[in-house]
Amino acid sequence: MRFTSQTSADGVTERSFTLGEIPGVLWTPEDAEPRALVLIGHGGGQHKQAPGVTARGLRLAAELGFAAAAIDAPAHGDRPRTADHDRLVTELRARMTGGGDPVPVLAEFHTLLAAQIVPDWCAVLDALGDLGPVGYWGMSLGCALGLPLVAAEPRIRAAVVGLSGTSLASPEAAAKVTVPVRFLLQWDDERVPRTEALALFDALSSPEKTLHANPGGHDAVPAFEADSASRFLARHLG
Amino acid sequence: MRFTSQTSADGVTERSFTLGEIPGVLWTPEDAEPRALVLIGHGGGQHKQAPGVTARGLRLAAELGFAAAAIDAPAHGDRPRTADHDRLVTELRARMTGGGDPVPVLAEFHTLLAAQIVPDWCAVLDALGDLGPVGYWGMSLGCALGLPLVAAEPRIRAAVVGLSGTSLASPEAAAKVTVPVRFLLQWDDERVPRTEALALFDALSSPEKTLHANPGGHDAVPAFEADSASRFLARHLG
Repeated sequence: MRFTSQTSADGVTERSFTLGEIPGVLWTPEDAEPRALVLIGHGGGQHKQAPGVTARGLRLAAELGFAAAAIDAPAHGDRPRTADHDRLVTELRARMTGGGDPVPVLAEFHTLLAAQIVPDWCAVLDALGDLGPVGYWGMSLGCALGLPLVAAEPRIRAAVVGLSGTSLASPEAAAKVTVPVRFLLQWDDERVPRTEALALFDALSSPEKTLHANPGGHDAVPAFEADSASRFLARHLG
Repeated sequence: MRFTSQTSADGVTERSFTLGEIPGVLWTPEDAEPRALVLIGHGGGQHKQAPGVTARGLRLAAELGFAAAAIDAPAHGDRPRTADHDRLVTELRARMTGGGDPVPVLAEFHTLLAAQIVPDWCAVLDALGDLGPVGYWGMSLGCALGLPLVAAEPRIRAAVVGLSGTSLASPEAAAKVTVPVRFLLQWDDERVPRTEALALFDALSSPEKTLHANPGGHDAVPAFEADSASRFLARHLG
């Protein structure tokens, strides 16, 4: 793991890194050992320093004294697209403009990305070393890619996921998740049918799992849910 | 309103009262003016000092500095049954032992009780005077009787309800509720079908409403939801 830049402000140090082909960013408390580490999965079309990702990393470090790490998903941010990615993105655009059903293509894209990012995250965890108990936070694409990771990676002890459903995320992966989960659902999500989101929550095997549903569309999660998710992570990792 | 007894412990004063035919109990911080008032509706077969009701009243006073009040619902606790109550309870028992469907009878019972308790609560609010912003907390029967109250009583600014569905509580009353609502749902509730609980949440007109769903049966709401509900009430009434 090679750190390529470092800045500090408001008690938080932000460092960019690369691990092989994987570009990432690490937030840590400036003057203390981190109490835990949260892996942040960005949304579709976003990247490791999208505003919501950065804001969450800064808050986890500043308010909870946690470390937080984000990486670009394959075909996102600074990472190149393969021929497979290109084929799926082209097909997706064609369906979205031509009126076909984009969901099966998007689901195939998510499955491909999940298979690639799970070993990426495990390698990043290995390289970061012990920064305390590990959690995961990711919505939408970050949920679809996070469930297989949380299912596969025994170091992850709690997860905040949501804004996805059984068409775009794997219910089979969800069924392998057993750690405490906070699941966010937007009641009027224009991208995720309500029944599919409820079915994805239902599929989780975790004895402790809590669904939080709020009115509004995919991008309208109320601010108080961020505070509540922080408390959830603090309760399980702190 | 006539206060009939008073005890204080751990910073909370508990007073029993009667207002006409209505027996109630009031918890207040011992050494400070209350910052708000929460009306607590008990569950079916319970009463104003059932363990869960008392525990909630004590916590609201001790931890938030709120006043809390509970009254016996008609046909519950120290309140007599009328001939109508007796007829419905007899029919309910007959169906529960004889194999008939108790839900329509229970729904009729709830409708009758709601019509009676809404004016009771309004009279209690009048008699208590200004103790700060008013909230409501009630699960199961306390939800079914609380929704018409919250819909009818403009002094109530926020409500924590749940563990009920569209067969046992009125979706028409829910549709008249516009204040912020926290709605608790038990994913494996043996008394409330999941789809009916989701439909009751859906019926609420409140721009701010949040569903919290957890695994387990009707009586297995996790302890952390009580903390979360307290924060919700503090946020809206504090």
